[in-house]
Amino acid sequence: MKFYDCLTAPSPRRVRMFINEKKLKIETINLDLRKSEQMEKWFSDINPRNTVPTFVTREGNILFHSLSICIYLEEVFEEINLLGKTAEEKGIIINSINDIESNLFSAIADCLRNSSKAMENRAITGPDNFEQIPELAERGRARVKSYFNVLENHLSEKSFMCIDRFTAADIWAFVAVDFTRAIKEPIPNELGALKFWYSEISKRDSAELNL
Amino acid sequence: MKFYDCLTAPSPRRVRMFINEKKLKIETINLDLRKSEQMEKWFSDINPRNTVPTFVTREGNILFHSLSICIYLEEVFEEINLLGKTAEEKGIIINSINDIESNLFSAIADCLRNSSKAMENRAITGPDNFEQIPELAERGRARVKSYFNVLENHLSEKSFMCIDRFTAADIWAFVAVDFTRAIKEPIPNELGALKFWYSEISKRDSAELNL
Repeated sequence: MKFYDCLTAPSPRRVRMFINEKKLKIETINLDLRKSEQMEKWFSDINPRNTVPTFVTREGNILFHSLSICIYLEEVFEEINLLGKTAEEKGIIINSINDIESNLFSAIADCLRNSSKAMENRAITGPDNFEQIPELAERGRARVKSYFNVLENHLSEKSFMCIDRFTAADIWAFVAVDFTRAIKEPIPNELGALKFWYSEISKRDSAELNL
Repeated sequence: MKFYDCLTAPSPRRVRMFINEKKLKIETINLDLRKSEQMEKWFSDINPRNTVPTFVTREGNILFHSLSICIYLEEVFEEINLLGKTAEEKGIIINSINDIESNLFSAIADCLRNSSKAMENRAITGPDNFEQIPELAERGRARVKSYFNVLENHLSEKSFMCIDRFTAADIWAFVAVDFTRAIKEPIPNELGALKFWYSEISKRDSAELNL
């Protein structure tokens, strides 16, 4: 197995945290996205979509979305369950993950990729170039603020995102919430439950993001 | 179990097709989104996010993303496997699903929700209102055209999206490709493999979308 990672990007960070939480040792190659290494030919030959994370499975299949990589790893390495043991647990953990990706993470990415100087013409990941849309950056920021409240309600009576223990949903939520640093949108002080959960999860984080 | 469906929306259609392919009988309630039934109080009380699909599990948990619902159903009803039997199969099927959602389906939704008259002020699903961004509609259309080529390459040597049989990845891809009718962006004639796969999958479709 081989994991193509990047220390400055949030999506591969989920996989890195997942691997660390499961105490796995996987061969890891770091790409420098600031030098556009993901666009180089040797990497296009592995993943023509030019995105990280990229993961090569035992049988040589290529996975390039963090959820599919984590589901694969959970199937191969059952110890330290992070994606649920029962149908009910699996359902609510995946539901949280889907929700964070489509309503929080995508909003942060919309904001960052459509406003950052470094991402001019790179508003969408992958081989094609797309121009930035400034209104989309604003809309993304508004959606982030709104989703902070969703998380606050969700965490107000819980220690973890889904069930009574740390799961992949906490990884997804933590990586997204922490990534709001990139758009300078901190958790509002009045959201005490979200702030407390964030500081608790920070303590176990072994997969830092270099911004 | 209870499934809140809608015959005019693509996301619940995936669940409907999944249920039909697995030959399950699940109590189903249809919502009329054109009458904004998803915003009514009785439904907010079930799913405060006001989205379909919404699914109530055996233990009363609420799932509101099509992938989490299908993963739950596959765990409860093992017969007629649609999400993979081995780690390798699961990995590549989920990877396809993630990819179609983030690179094709979201592009179609961007295009439709940011251009349709009926969706003025409703550019994002859920309880908050967001104004349309016309440039995002254009960008969505460009991404759809680009992804048609990804699918064509992918299907040029295969009968199905992932492995040698029909899986949930075919459901996700079919529902997305068929949904391009809503933005009047047909499959280009020269993409023979994609057109052939689409017509083959159409034959087994028992979960029509009323546009």
